[in-house]
Amino acid sequence: MNTWILEKEGFSPADAAADGNRFLCANGYLGLRGVPEEAGPALFPAVTLAGVYDQFEEKWREPVNAPHGLRLQLTMNGRALSLEETAPLRHKTMLDYRYGIYHRDTDFGPARILSSRFTSLADPHLMADQYRVEFQKSGLVSLRVGISTDIWDINGPHLFGFRHHAEEILLTEATTGQKGIRVAVAQGMEISPRVEESISVEPDGLYRTLVAEVFPGDIWTLSVYASVYTSLDHPSPAAQARASIQRAMRVGYLELLQAHQAAWDQVWQASEIQLEGDEAAAQALHASQYHLNCIAPRHAGNMSIPARGLSGQTYKGAIFWDSEMFFFPMFVYTQPEVAQSLLRYRIETLPGARKKAAEYGYRGAFYAWESQEGGEEGCTNFNVVDVFTHRPVRTYFRDKQIHISGDIAYALRSYYDITGDRSLLEEGGAEVILECARFYLSRASLHADREEADFADVIGPDEYHERVTNNAYTNQIILHCLQSALALADIFADRPAWFQGLLLQIKYEKDWPLLENICRRLPAPREREGVIEQFDGYFALEDCTLEEVRSRLRDPREYWGGDHGVAGVTQIIKQADVIAMMALFPGLYTDAQVAANWAYYEPRTEHGSSLSACMYALAACRVGRLEEAWQLFQKTAEIDVLGGGKQWAGEIYIGGTHPASNGGAWMIAALGFAGLRMRGGQLTLQPHLPSQVKRLSFPVTAAGRRYRVEVTQEGGTITEI
Amino acid sequence: MNTWILEKEGFSPADAAADGNRFLCANGYLGLRGVPEEAGPALFPAVTLAGVYDQFEEKWREPVNAPHGLRLQLTMNGRALSLEETAPLRHKTMLDYRYGIYHRDTDFGPARILSSRFTSLADPHLMADQYRVEFQKSGLVSLRVGISTDIWDINGPHLFGFRHHAEEILLTEATTGQKGIRVAVAQGMEISPRVEESISVEPDGLYRTLVAEVFPGDIWTLSVYASVYTSLDHPSPAAQARASIQRAMRVGYLELLQAHQAAWDQVWQASEIQLEGDEAAAQALHASQYHLNCIAPRHAGNMSIPARGLSGQTYKGAIFWDSEMFFFPMFVYTQPEVAQSLLRYRIETLPGARKKAAEYGYRGAFYAWESQEGGEEGCTNFNVVDVFTHRPVRTYFRDKQIHISGDIAYALRSYYDITGDRSLLEEGGAEVILECARFYLSRASLHADREEADFADVIGPDEYHERVTNNAYTNQIILHCLQSALALADIFADRPAWFQGLLLQIKYEKDWPLLENICRRLPAPREREGVIEQFDGYFALEDCTLEEVRSRLRDPREYWGGDHGVAGVTQIIKQADVIAMMALFPGLYTDAQVAANWAYYEPRTEHGSSLSACMYALAACRVGRLEEAWQLFQKTAEIDVLGGGKQWAGEIYIGGTHPASNGGAWMIAALGFAGLRMRGGQLTLQPHLPSQVKRLSFPVTAAGRRYRVEVTQEGGTITEI
Repeated sequence: MNTWILEKEGFSPADAAADGNRFLCANGYLGLRGVPEEAGPALFPAVTLAGVYDQFEEKWREPVNAPHGLRLQLTMNGRALSLEETAPLRHKTMLDYRYGIYHRDTDFGPARILSSRFTSLADPHLMADQYRVEFQKSGLVSLRVGISTDIWDINGPHLFGFRHHAEEILLTEATTGQKGIRVAVAQGMEISPRVEESISVEPDGLYRTLVAEVFPGDIWTLSVYASVYTSLDHPSPAAQARASIQRAMRVGYLELLQAHQAAWDQVWQASEIQLEGDEAAAQALHASQYHLNCIAPRHAGNMSIPARGLSGQTYKGAIFWDSEMFFFPMFVYTQPEVAQSLLRYRIETLPGARKKAAEYGYRGAFYAWESQEGGEEGCTNFNVVDVFTHRPVRTYFRDKQIHISGDIAYALRSYYDITGDRSLLEEGGAEVILECARFYLSRASLHADREEADFADVIGPDEYHERVTNNAYTNQIILHCLQSALALADIFADRPAWFQGLLLQIKYEKDWPLLENICRRLPAPREREGVIEQFDGYFALEDCTLEEVRSRLRDPREYWGGDHGVAGVTQIIKQADVIAMMALFPGLYTDAQVAANWAYYEPRTEHGSSLSACMYALAACRVGRLEEAWQLFQKTAEIDVLGGGKQWAGEIYIGGTHPASNGGAWMIAALGFAGLRMRGGQLTLQPHLPSQVKRLSFPVTAAGRRYRVEVTQEGGTITEI
Repeated sequence: MNTWILEKEGFSPADAAADGNRFLCANGYLGLRGVPEEAGPALFPAVTLAGVYDQFEEKWREPVNAPHGLRLQLTMNGRALSLEETAPLRHKTMLDYRYGIYHRDTDFGPARILSSRFTSLADPHLMADQYRVEFQKSGLVSLRVGISTDIWDINGPHLFGFRHHAEEILLTEATTGQKGIRVAVAQGMEISPRVEESISVEPDGLYRTLVAEVFPGDIWTLSVYASVYTSLDHPSPAAQARASIQRAMRVGYLELLQAHQAAWDQVWQASEIQLEGDEAAAQALHASQYHLNCIAPRHAGNMSIPARGLSGQTYKGAIFWDSEMFFFPMFVYTQPEVAQSLLRYRIETLPGARKKAAEYGYRGAFYAWESQEGGEEGCTNFNVVDVFTHRPVRTYFRDKQIHISGDIAYALRSYYDITGDRSLLEEGGAEVILECARFYLSRASLHADREEADFADVIGPDEYHERVTNNAYTNQIILHCLQSALALADIFADRPAWFQGLLLQIKYEKDWPLLENICRRLPAPREREGVIEQFDGYFALEDCTLEEVRSRLRDPREYWGGDHGVAGVTQIIKQADVIAMMALFPGLYTDAQVAANWAYYEPRTEHGSSLSACMYALAACRVGRLEEAWQLFQKTAEIDVLGGGKQWAGEIYIGGTHPASNGGAWMIAALGFAGLRMRGGQLTLQPHLPSQVKRLSFPVTAAGRRYRVEVTQEGGTITEI
């Protein structure tokens, strides 16, 4: 078994949504869904752009899909040789995780199409497709090669005023509706043998049509290049796109491919986890690392990663806490420059977080739950649609999930602890931590007649229980944020004037002394028989099984959460909450505590989010539940191999890749199985290797040095390299 | 038109539920629903007992319906002369509001039944029925006269272990399931002429069967007496009930009726409002005063009045804030001993309120939202059933409607202000106010970085908006409660040792100094163009019309409130909230403020509760909107004349009389139209008489003196009598 390859035989339109995700090509700038070249909107093709957002009318704001510059449609004797219209004799799709190359091989009978394409990691604006047709019958052939403007949007349209330029290089330009961002796509093509061609603007785009009489044994080979630029990249995106194609055609497919592969080689050298003992698991790890690595915003330095990566417009293309909790760990330990980019995004969006805090009457920084460009909150107050009334349901993700600010502070602090690099704190990170702490100061509830401070009316990671008080996770992440703010004085003990200047500049003099006071007042989590109560009153909720709760659904698409949902009024939770806290703060809890809480909460967890299994797996490793850890690891790592997860919620498409699971797979392998942890500036291992794994080997970067970790059933080593 | 009489011609089973309410007889101890003697459970007959509660299995806890001691069923030639089985030639029902006498006159053809019955106001255990049959055909007659155990319960059964004693007096005894309360019903009968009789225990009760051959022109006249005692009244309820019937039979129907009428004469002398100019309105006022007066717990001295009076088991027979806000005003101004009973109920249930506060982690007294005996909370966390899923819906009346404690403190303070009687404060009332204030002390949210105290996560009178912060009404009632606690020091300035002793006894030393502090910190309500914002963020909610909101319903039975309801996410409110505050605290707001808020809130109010119209009417009087005040008055006063209001919510019976509207009618007439108000120990008038009213005249008691108020279009006078 080649653990670098994903293969699928056959074609079914019902799988198109899922296959588009699992066969995705992406490079951080754009994502090209894994559907064949001829696919129309029914098969959900898309070229999704990172960081380019648009809102159409009152619909959800979402990322913009560019015109598709690699669309090819073959017709023979008047019959479309397209998977949507003609059943193939044989069809095979393949994704090479090593180099992010999508291959197809389709035998339609009269002709066979074989292609390979990639989105360049060396030049993120560029996509290339080598497209080969072997004719097996004679006939009249027509091949349309062009830039499709027949764009699949969830909440579109987003592009208006299309302008087409037909020279040797095709060029289509359009403008987003809301902000007038210009998007330009250029396409160039080489074909052998040469064929008569004509160019025309058609309702669905700009196309070159190649027409010829063919005979059995004839072979056409095309190299097609497409390039995307927007006015966010350059004032003249059209010129840039055209120049990019000219360059591509000059150097040719092979050289572009080599540069692309060289870039991937570097990524894998820095991050590949080798797992021996179970080939399916090794493949799933490659898949996970591929999917997370291919969406890293390496080109930018100040961007983060949406919750569904670049696989489409799902979840508004927004940045969630997934970035800090699930993407950040792999990057900080393998490619800290990417981790830095994720956090610079937060630093640069501090104004948006300040604005949101003020909107709710608070001070400091309350980060967006669904953050788009500039840190604007993309989350609405009505984020779910009721299946019975078709009315939007008031949800509280936006206003009550206050742990988001602490999650960001946690990652900033971790970046410093793991890399030893203080520059990020100096360049805005310290200010972010201080402003997040200030938000919590102003959000705390004190009492007239007792010392304890509460954080009331919040939502923890388990989103099914809304508007609770003293969520253990939230209180702990707040405490850590406050302590991290206080710790800045020590971190900058050698630059006291600079630090005092910062406090003065952000008018922090009155707030600073309050930090310690609130830390002292935060109540210890309530416990019962060693189990931490997830929030005040959780244990008083109905304690019933997951099956019982599921049986109460009247419609399988019902939302489980909130007061109206089947889970919200019981102890059934959506995802790791207390266990997530224990995974993030391993030093605060004993093994016995983790074991007791795992045993209590795991059976009560729906795992209704891709963020859940990883946290349970980390805790399972720690307490020696290795069989369960292994199963959770498989579940986590396989998700984008199998194309699992929900594709639809009612009438809303929620499918896509699962970067949080992808990152989670790395976390389970490295932080769980190998037990990697930074303690007091030292990397340490505490292996908990499931019996299925013979050997784990992976590179790690910490405090500016590079190491290789090797773990077997006999133990583990960390070697500097 | 006789404004003391309610009449109805004809019979329709569909009206039975509503008619049972509007033709109710009651005397504070029990309520006898206004259905004919022969009615079986399908017509909802009931003898509902005040203050006797029972829970069956997991159903809602509710008042117990006693066996029905006035059941009579006539059969002639094998045919039941019963409204359920035989269509009458003519049927007329009448209720005499003056004396609470129910009359029926039914011509079935072969026989005509005429009866008069009452529940004695002189002896509240006693009911009497004078039942006359005029035979118009010959035939074999059978008349069953007995104690029916075929009880209509909403959440029953409640009575078990029936024991029947058949002597001259019939006696049925049973025991409640939950607490083993014994309920005894005795029945005695006289008939003229004498007829052959037999007694038998049957599946549906204990019956005497009278059988005879009759001829046209024959007339039977029966006097039937029934008596109810429970073991809460006396250790030997059966003996008491039997003795009560022996006494009744000794004195006879006429003398019992006279004693009953004399008692009513006193009630009317103390309370009757005479309205001239509109007879329908005068009748509606009589109806309202009748319905509120007939359920006053005069026999007890320490009981209150359920929200649906004694008309059945609706709303669990529980005591709501209706008691203090809507029943209390008429009584305190006309029959202060009844007002005192309502408040003594609260004083005696202080332990229950302390327990509830502790249950939620607070100190002091958090009164039950739906209070049953002992102050136990009868309100569940799931008080509504979703019409789509048939699942119970989590509601927050129980845990968030914290204004209840302040409402009670408000009434205690009003009782003292209006009567000048300090005894109630001395005998526990002061302690209640202090404990309510302590509850608010412990419930307040302070902040680390600012002075203001919030009351967060509450529900105001407008129950459609759940879990809001700084509800203006709630904050004001809290402020008044805190101020009333502080004012106790002045009220008891002549007994400082006693008052200090009280503070010591309830360990109030540390809390006392905090009261003033919180008063100072309570934020002033937010305003926009003179309109007070109902709660923080209310103005940011969708501002749409009532019609628009109604049009969004997918099912007419949907609950409007909460996040899931059509109103909860808009500015549409259920009932007076800001306007209720202005009605309760007239001195705090200028006429211009009341006018601005009335104009804003009235169009946004569904008036989905019988508590709403009265408050709007009071405010309308004040700002000279007399036509609207008149319409609201009519709507309020007529409700139990017309038998209006909802009878069913989904599958739950919610019908009954509307004591809050009944009290509201008195409030609009006396406090609104006449503008009666106690200012600085003086009764004052500020008449706002709608053009429809020529003259209002009514008695008032204040500061131990009796007055008559006379108001005409020319002005008003208060004369001591």
